[in-house]
Amino acid sequence: MLKIIRLQRCFSVTTTFSVRGIGTVTLNEQWLKVRMASVSENLMSKVAEVLPSGGRKVTIVGIGQVGMACAFSILAQNVSNEICLVDVCKDKLQGEMMDLQHGSNFLKNPKITASTEYEATAGSRLCIVTAGVRQKEGESRLSLVQRNTDILKHIIPKLVQYSPDTILLMVSNPVDIMTYVAWKLSGLPKNRVIGSGTNLDSSRFRFLMSQRLDVAPTSCHGWIIGEHGDSSVPVWSGVNIAGVRLRELNPNIGTTEDPENWEEVHKKVVDSAYEVIKLKGYTSWAIGLSSAALASAILNNTSNIVAVSTSVQGQHGIDKDVFLSLPCVLNANGITSIVKQILTATEVEQLQKSANIMDQVQAGIKF
Amino acid sequence: MLKIIRLQRCFSVTTTFSVRGIGTVTLNEQWLKVRMASVSENLMSKVAEVLPSGGRKVTIVGIGQVGMACAFSILAQNVSNEICLVDVCKDKLQGEMMDLQHGSNFLKNPKITASTEYEATAGSRLCIVTAGVRQKEGESRLSLVQRNTDILKHIIPKLVQYSPDTILLMVSNPVDIMTYVAWKLSGLPKNRVIGSGTNLDSSRFRFLMSQRLDVAPTSCHGWIIGEHGDSSVPVWSGVNIAGVRLRELNPNIGTTEDPENWEEVHKKVVDSAYEVIKLKGYTSWAIGLSSAALASAILNNTSNIVAVSTSVQGQHGIDKDVFLSLPCVLNANGITSIVKQILTATEVEQLQKSANIMDQVQAGIKF
Amino acid sequence: MLKIIRLQRCFSVTTTFSVRGIGTVTLNEQWLKVRMASVSENLMSKVAEVLPSGGRKVTIVGIGQVGMACAFSILAQNVSNEICLVDVCKDKLQGEMMDLQHGSNFLKNPKITASTEYEATAGSRLCIVTAGVRQKEGESRLSLVQRNTDILKHIIPKLVQYSPDTILLMVSNPVDIMTYVAWKLSGLPKNRVIGSGTNLDSSRFRFLMSQRLDVAPTSCHGWIIGEHGDSSVPVWSGVNIAGVRLRELNPNIGTTEDPENWEEVHKKVVDSAYEVIKLKGYTSWAIGLSSAALASAILNNTSNIVAVSTSVQGQHGIDKDVFLSLPCVLNANGITSIVKQILTATEVEQLQKSANIMDQVQAGIKF
Amino acid sequence: MLKIIRLQRCFSVTTTFSVRGIGTVTLNEQWLKVRMASVSENLMSKVAEVLPSGGRKVTIVGIGQVGMACAFSILAQNVSNEICLVDVCKDKLQGEMMDLQHGSNFLKNPKITASTEYEATAGSRLCIVTAGVRQKEGESRLSLVQRNTDILKHIIPKLVQYSPDTILLMVSNPVDIMTYVAWKLSGLPKNRVIGSGTNLDSSRFRFLMSQRLDVAPTSCHGWIIGEHGDSSVPVWSGVNIAGVRLRELNPNIGTTEDPENWEEVHKKVVDSAYEVIKLKGYTSWAIGLSSAALASAILNNTSNIVAVSTSVQGQHGIDKDVFLSLPCVLNANGITSIVKQILTATEVEQLQKSANIMDQVQAGIKF
Repeated sequence: MLKIIRLQRCFSVTTTFSVRGIGTVTLNEQWLKVRMASVSENLMSKVAEVLPSGGRKVTIVGIGQVGMACAFSILAQNVSNEICLVDVCKDKLQGEMMDLQHGSNFLKNPKITASTEYEATAGSRLCIVTAGVRQKEGESRLSLVQRNTDILKHIIPKLVQYSPDTILLMVSNPVDIMTYVAWKLSGLPKNRVIGSGTNLDSSRFRFLMSQRLDVAPTSCHGWIIGEHGDSSVPVWSGVNIAGVRLRELNPNIGTTEDPENWEEVHKKVVDSAYEVIKLKGYTSWAIGLSSAALASAILNNTSNIVAVSTSVQGQHGIDKDVFLSLPCVLNANGITSIVKQILTATEVEQLQKSANIMDQVQAGIKF
Repeated sequence: MLKIIRLQRCFSVTTTFSVRGIGTVTLNEQWLKVRMASVSENLMSKVAEVLPSGGRKVTIVGIGQVGMACAFSILAQNVSNEICLVDVCKDKLQGEMMDLQHGSNFLKNPKITASTEYEATAGSRLCIVTAGVRQKEGESRLSLVQRNTDILKHIIPKLVQYSPDTILLMVSNPVDIMTYVAWKLSGLPKNRVIGSGTNLDSSRFRFLMSQRLDVAPTSCHGWIIGEHGDSSVPVWSGVNIAGVRLRELNPNIGTTEDPENWEEVHKKVVDSAYEVIKLKGYTSWAIGLSSAALASAILNNTSNIVAVSTSVQGQHGIDKDVFLSLPCVLNANGITSIVKQILTATEVEQLQKSANIMDQVQAGIKF
Repeated sequence: MLKIIRLQRCFSVTTTFSVRGIGTVTLNEQWLKVRMASVSENLMSKVAEVLPSGGRKVTIVGIGQVGMACAFSILAQNVSNEICLVDVCKDKLQGEMMDLQHGSNFLKNPKITASTEYEATAGSRLCIVTAGVRQKEGESRLSLVQRNTDILKHIIPKLVQYSPDTILLMVSNPVDIMTYVAWKLSGLPKNRVIGSGTNLDSSRFRFLMSQRLDVAPTSCHGWIIGEHGDSSVPVWSGVNIAGVRLRELNPNIGTTEDPENWEEVHKKVVDSAYEVIKLKGYTSWAIGLSSAALASAILNNTSNIVAVSTSVQGQHGIDKDVFLSLPCVLNANGITSIVKQILTATEVEQLQKSANIMDQVQAGIKF
Repeated sequence: MLKIIRLQRCFSVTTTFSVRGIGTVTLNEQWLKVRMASVSENLMSKVAEVLPSGGRKVTIVGIGQVGMACAFSILAQNVSNEICLVDVCKDKLQGEMMDLQHGSNFLKNPKITASTEYEATAGSRLCIVTAGVRQKEGESRLSLVQRNTDILKHIIPKLVQYSPDTILLMVSNPVDIMTYVAWKLSGLPKNRVIGSGTNLDSSRFRFLMSQRLDVAPTSCHGWIIGEHGDSSVPVWSGVNIAGVRLRELNPNIGTTEDPENWEEVHKKVVDSAYEVIKLKGYTSWAIGLSSAALASAILNNTSNIVAVSTSVQGQHGIDKDVFLSLPCVLNANGITSIVKQILTATEVEQLQKSANIMDQVQAGIKF
């Protein structure tokens, strides 16, 4: 039999008719048999099953510009090579999946799937949620929150059902409240429900700082904490280069007395999202990279410290059960510690004010 | 006391002994002087100038979905950390630049610039051109080519003026003719003007092949050559896994006689762009990754073999001066060799047919 | 309590004496208490446990030049950031662990452990075994095999005991027989016991081929199969560039008739290990990188095709239960398929000869 | 002619005898001619020259354990894919080059060369010097310095001759003085002669700090400055996590009063090299990774801040022309700025003491 197969192969190299010319009854039978086996069967002997997952599956819910930038950053930076996209928009879902798959040859042989059904997300180590609607003109914050809560009701329980050990990374806005909502809906311990929070704000701060000082952004150290967006808090006391606090060189840094007007750096951070949206219509690359960095800390169990949205009850005198960003230790178990930064009275006050607003909004949500 | 301590620290930046002479006129003068120095001056002693470039600058002209996917792929995969974006749309340009810059902290400290003026592109090692208009309904191919040629007239000469040693990588469609046009406009030797061509078609082919065989795409070997798009040519004789030609297992592979219908794989490759555009509105990720892979071969001088659009006069009996994709050796000098694949008569005929069409279109272009 | 902590912190920011100046008995008591809390407790609120592993733990048994090159390649190429070193030599073990750990800041925050006890290996996804003795002068092959088998008896059962789901990657020589021995000792299914085999020989072949053709090694395709070392088999029929078989350009390639003497390339592959050992005393970098590439395919579940040592009973007419290298599909379940290359009669004969020798040696091993 | 070539190829696919059956005298002549062309000529049409370098060439002088760990780290981390090894020991040089080359297929198609002659180093962007002898028992420091100076006299001028635009990175010990010597011998501006200095000590510090706090090493910030080795200075004031100075939590940190004994962390840093050398015979991995990180900052023009040995005249009240480590901005022009850290009187004193010792040793060197 084996000999015959080799025979067939040799013939196929020359021409088909000559094979038939040589054929005997026995040969023809085997020839037919061989031809009916698929290329795959002829090519390989199967010895074991391929496993469905290598253990680093990341699901991304919502494939708008933000969701796709998250997915692409994770693949291009090789944070994971196993991505599942989920959305309600079937056509776009199929298109984005195909477009990523067509680039497989330039990545690390990723496994990219997409589905409108949550069954496809089973076994995810991390689920990144970017789904949500935008604020309508004249719409109240609470109304927006309620609409997005209603959307999360259809997402979070299903994610947890199919991946009970997953970590949830919330990117949908307003991210701090949506992280609280996701935690409530998930039934997961708080450490495993994280909001992307001010990780991006901090990155923007470091970039702007690097422009002022002509130093690499990763050598610029500074933390933006609190609520992601307008009321975020820059912790000026911690802003440093090689351990040298800028406040020691400029005691008024971050205040209105500062002749160099460093507060402008924070203002630009706050304005960043508005500015980029005004200019290009949406933000995508930076939030995608920010999410990929958080995913990397989680999947690689690194215990990096990052500013992410977490339950802050008991921190800095906050007694409400709300989520805000603080520097946290992030790893395979989610958030395992929160850094107790030394804040000024004003900074604490700003945080508490945000906490109170969060608490009020949360009180109005219908679950 | 506190004030003095801070005072002391400022002084310590200049000289320590003056601190000890606390509260004299001289002291006050120095204090004022110190306070007026910027944080940057107080923080660092400058000893040399920062160089404007590290030698791997990549310019990307045209910042639509394709151009931005190229830029982001190059940054995220660390192919280069020096990117210059050029476009006529000032607002979007600013927005895309900012969005990339805000992610700097998650990249390798890139230098990202953007301008509507070509001066900003000076010293580029590689220029990727994605600019161009789309076919209007009912528009002839020649009309489209002429419109895009008129656009390239404003781009190519300026790129070469500011970066005379650059390599040009054309992505604008129809890519084969646009590569010819760019070569004509540039005055550069042919080896330094390259079209992204069928590098992407080949990647799509390998992905689809990997799906049929349950093998990593990078372990699937197959080449699509000729014209990027509808009339591309799959070289079935070279399709192999671990050196085993699939044709040896299935002599009719790629023909209408094939019971497994492998020709469908090529059909899907041809339909890919249409399909993705229909589903998501445009293609971006795969062409971005394809361009980043080509950029990597160029910047790293690797001599990888890739299917890219090059001058094919003298290859496979083609006597016209046209550009089509063939497997080429790609490195810091552009294309240094072209692989002479062994083609069937039909394959050669298909190539020559494409060459003749190119030639006719080219004859009608007004430079 | 919380308030006091903040108080202490504020004071410490100003000066120590002023803290003391304000002090009351009560304050002093709390001040002392705070001082007694560790920096870690003061710095962070713990909210959850850190998990012991991120799920990609790789154990390396044997920390000679080969074992350490494997460990370092895996860390430097970011294949895994969780490494456990095992050896009997306690001092060297401690030294190598420390040396790797001291570079953590330049890696992806890896977790590097080391122990003489196998308990430390618990939960490994992959165990790479490089332990073993070298051939003594005048020692028979069987004697060497028996000595290394006796060593594996102390290693393999313990690895499997602590990591029952692990994949074993054998690097110890003679690698084909040692892979068989490890499989026997492990009780694992055959697909999960792999020998590094001719993955390195194939890499050497491609490098030497690249030197002849001035083309990137990764664009040079060729496979060395069979026994790792002297009697390895180059599959000339599969040697190709862009799908062009070199045999089509030179029908005598690999034979004694070949005027270009390509057979010399294979000879150099066979001589490589001897040559490098003669020149530098041992081989390390290439085998380290080869192992890291295999580890990457396993940990990332990529289904790459690689030439590794596997059970070849039933392949190419071999009826013995022996391990030799053939191109295999490698992923998270180990080897899931074996490629059925089309070999010449001579190549099959060489494989069968190797198989018979393996079988004879194996028959003499005392388990 | 072209037709004949294709004819030949088709025949070679089928069988040789059938070619001979068709043959005429003319055909036989061309057949022979074709056969005499090399595979390379038949495979590819050359269209341009391959450039000798992609512009990121790194030379490494001295291929002991340290030099090879530098080379391997640079290749494995893809900092450069162009390495030239230089040493006087021809055999080992050849062996190390071959061992690296054999792994090319698992790297980014690197170009690895080796030579005992400096001509091979031409056009290097960076030269890393690890050559040097070790201290003999009872040998004075000055005697060691003189012996290593005599070695550098044969190295440095030749490196600069063949690569006048290079940056020199000194790794040879005692590194601070050797950097001064290299600067003197090179005639290069000070910013382009750098000592690896306390970049490694700082990395060790951060690792040990990470172990105490259970936080990723890259999230641990601390700087060791001054002389590489025994008299290095830990800048406790800058030690921080997320901007929180540990000194604020423990005012006595780094002093003998500290109940947590953090000074032990610095002691372990100082003892690290001795300890590792005692345990494994030499240090390699960490210094290799440290050098690769510095190479990356230089080749990528990143302006990262790193603790490296540079001319410190005028810094911290030092008036001698000596080299010590301080945090510096490192990029394609070498060191472009030095960070003016705020040091305590004791720290300044320690630095000045080191400077004076350096100065005395330097005074005794015969150039």
